[in-house]
Amino acid sequence: MVDNSSNFLKWERKDLVGLRNLTKEDIELLLETAASFKEVTTRQIKKVPALRGKTVVNLFYESSTRTRVSFEVAAKRLSADVINIATEYSSVKKGETLNDTGRNIEALKADLIVVRHNAAGAAAMLARHVKISVVNAGDGWHEHPTQALLDIFTLAEKKKKIKGLTVTIVGDVAHSRVARSNIWGLTKLGAKVIICAPKIFIPAEIEKMGVSVIPDIEQALSESDAVNVLRMQFERDEKAAFPEKLDYFKKFGITQKRIDKTNKDIIVMHPGPVNRGVEISSEVADGPNSVILEQVTNGIAVRMAVLYLVSGAKENSGQDGA
Amino acid sequence: MVDNSSNFLKWERKDLVGLRNLTKEDIELLLETAASFKEVTTRQIKKVPALRGKTVVNLFYESSTRTRVSFEVAAKRLSADVINIATEYSSVKKGETLNDTGRNIEALKADLIVVRHNAAGAAAMLARHVKISVVNAGDGWHEHPTQALLDIFTLAEKKKKIKGLTVTIVGDVAHSRVARSNIWGLTKLGAKVIICAPKIFIPAEIEKMGVSVIPDIEQALSESDAVNVLRMQFERDEKAAFPEKLDYFKKFGITQKRIDKTNKDIIVMHPGPVNRGVEISSEVADGPNSVILEQVTNGIAVRMAVLYLVSGAKENSGQDGA
Amino acid sequence: MVDNSSNFLKWERKDLVGLRNLTKEDIELLLETAASFKEVTTRQIKKVPALRGKTVVNLFYESSTRTRVSFEVAAKRLSADVINIATEYSSVKKGETLNDTGRNIEALKADLIVVRHNAAGAAAMLARHVKISVVNAGDGWHEHPTQALLDIFTLAEKKKKIKGLTVTIVGDVAHSRVARSNIWGLTKLGAKVIICAPKIFIPAEIEKMGVSVIPDIEQALSESDAVNVLRMQFERDEKAAFPEKLDYFKKFGITQKRIDKTNKDIIVMHPGPVNRGVEISSEVADGPNSVILEQVTNGIAVRMAVLYLVSGAKENSGQDGA
Repeated sequence: MVDNSSNFLKWERKDLVGLRNLTKEDIELLLETAASFKEVTTRQIKKVPALRGKTVVNLFYESSTRTRVSFEVAAKRLSADVINIATEYSSVKKGETLNDTGRNIEALKADLIVVRHNAAGAAAMLARHVKISVVNAGDGWHEHPTQALLDIFTLAEKKKKIKGLTVTIVGDVAHSRVARSNIWGLTKLGAKVIICAPKIFIPAEIEKMGVSVIPDIEQALSESDAVNVLRMQFERDEKAAFPEKLDYFKKFGITQKRIDKTNKDIIVMHPGPVNRGVEISSEVADGPNSVILEQVTNGIAVRMAVLYLVSGAKENSGQDGA
Repeated sequence: MVDNSSNFLKWERKDLVGLRNLTKEDIELLLETAASFKEVTTRQIKKVPALRGKTVVNLFYESSTRTRVSFEVAAKRLSADVINIATEYSSVKKGETLNDTGRNIEALKADLIVVRHNAAGAAAMLARHVKISVVNAGDGWHEHPTQALLDIFTLAEKKKKIKGLTVTIVGDVAHSRVARSNIWGLTKLGAKVIICAPKIFIPAEIEKMGVSVIPDIEQALSESDAVNVLRMQFERDEKAAFPEKLDYFKKFGITQKRIDKTNKDIIVMHPGPVNRGVEISSEVADGPNSVILEQVTNGIAVRMAVLYLVSGAKENSGQDGA
Repeated sequence: MVDNSSNFLKWERKDLVGLRNLTKEDIELLLETAASFKEVTTRQIKKVPALRGKTVVNLFYESSTRTRVSFEVAAKRLSADVINIATEYSSVKKGETLNDTGRNIEALKADLIVVRHNAAGAAAMLARHVKISVVNAGDGWHEHPTQALLDIFTLAEKKKKIKGLTVTIVGDVAHSRVARSNIWGLTKLGAKVIICAPKIFIPAEIEKMGVSVIPDIEQALSESDAVNVLRMQFERDEKAAFPEKLDYFKKFGITQKRIDKTNKDIIVMHPGPVNRGVEISSEVADGPNSVILEQVTNGIAVRMAVLYLVSGAKENSGQDGA
């Protein structure tokens, strides 16, 4: 029996819109709750009744199979009913605003909205406009808190701690919500974060976030316990042609040779889907340092924890023992 | 415990294709059943086992997130399994007719088809061709019975009656299935209906439906207990340009000033999504006279009632007590 | 109570990728298990808990409402959680390979992937790359094993045997996975298969599969107990114009006159959706010899059997008695 009821009592937030505004204690509570849900996914019957009778709406204004499916699986393993809304079908076409859509979902007596939107701040705005819980599944280049939580969960599982670790984030940090959420989460928990990327991919005043910039990938790796390799979104920028991809791989690509050179048991993470031969070699992606598939597995546990804590599941706990 | 078993015994229709052919008693039974299901959505666990083991197919030839989601939530709260079919994926592409599709769904041993189609009469035709239940979720400009039922339910909840009320319907009545179903439902229950719209939006011989036409919005409102504001579907008619929208709002738009002028506690309804500043002002849509979000909430209860009554749920009632 | 537990113990395959590699005993076990699940669909509550807590992912790289819906209904009647992934939304767009996608689904702790893909061999490749079960829902022109199983199940139900029967397959056999799977299945069970089609639709060396070719439809029918009419996929070949359709119908179309001429109780099957007046007349499709809708019904039972046997459901059987 999963017993998260004491965590429940400690959690006071209606929403999860980002890691920036969470305390160290909030994040630790999320990770601890995720650990107990991870056990559920190893069972014969991988379900708990924690959200039975609750309705979770996946409201996706950007298509993202991986994130949508992960939230859908997490919600169903909590026994929630799940409704998927994709922009393709949405009344967004008819000009309805995000807030109107949110209030309509609330009027359906849904309990929780998981929102993916291309505008930074969309999840926070929605959270202010509805009384039900909102979970940010990625808002523009702003935050993607559940991705960062699953990265940190996986790292902690491997290294048995976060405090005192050094994590290098490689790639287009300027346009990465994954990077931003990781920086907030890792630094709050006492890890050191290094950014390694071409200059154009490094946001101005990044040092104010408490990170350091090391432009040389080999030097960055030599100082790190883990590397989080961002997906190069060349499809977003049509100007980035094949030679540029090759050049990027040569300067920043994570190869086995570079991993071996560190002489350390370095953890390799990637939010997926992997661009083999662009930001990471196949050898590394599928190799012993990679925890990429474990990240996917942990994503379910982390999202179960988030949905459980932010929802009104508290009141159920007596009946369902969940 | 919801006890609709006596309603069940009185209901004899396999399908709900429109309000035109229902009796006053049928409509009252639907509204009464909806009232008992509304209570379910206020519970901790918002589910009843009434349709457990039943399969509801949402067959949508026109995209409509709002209506599809409302039916999906309603069916899931009745514990049914729900299958969504949208034209995008459907074998309609392969030229299969609606009746063939219907018979195939029946052959899957599904129990109920909720159909949205752009052709008037589609739901009725399908209902004749299959033995399982068919619920019309909108057929062309013909009928949208569950929308009208939720409008009437909401009105009755506010005014404690329908008989003797006067309801103005404003907008493109000629092309509105919502208007048509409302007219049938309201007049059968003894309400008076006023149509207020530009001439081109008023169907020929509308008076034969038992309604009166008042072209001046302020006069119409002054005689009404409620106004049902139709969405102006300007996107359907590309010729309707911006100046025409402004002009429409000036002549027929529901503004706070016009509401206040009536000096009455007038109820403002809208099937959504709202075109703010086109057929209604934001102030009214979000104001104290508006019941727009309550309509959305009541839509779930009304659709639960419809699915419950038309389905073969009767036979379950003994076992599940639902 | 369905008792398939003894079948369970005999079944040893993780996947179902085709009928070619199955033994006669494997196929008989599948058909026998399907028969017991067919009984479930006649119940008040058409569900068994056999796959409760299991996650089935429908991974469709080609759109096919009929097959996807059939698998979705089958999985839900086994109480599984179902996740639909269509290429439209998939990270395939982002260049993720089928194997990466498969490993990601496996990492979600899903239990079973139902895959439809336009490349022959896709299901087999995926099955080799993941430890969880894979069911082929059609791979290119290669195999569509559950369709053939439901054809054979329906035929056996009608004729009380398969051994010794003669089945004519009419149509574009060269490009038909349905034909290929039927040939493997029927010949393994001791039926005789006749191919009847224009020369360009007959694969080279087809006789090596143990079938005979009879180009004249009336002669073929006169020797047959059943005819399986393939859908003419004229939409795949834009060059096939209207005169060619007419010509095809004249030479190979299944008409009541041709059926009557055989003076036999010949069974007419079609995988659907039917092209009325192209490969079959409406009179036959809807007539007494047609078992087309029964095929659809049996598809659920056959797919329940397949999902049940290949999944890890075995371990559940003690608890759920399913």
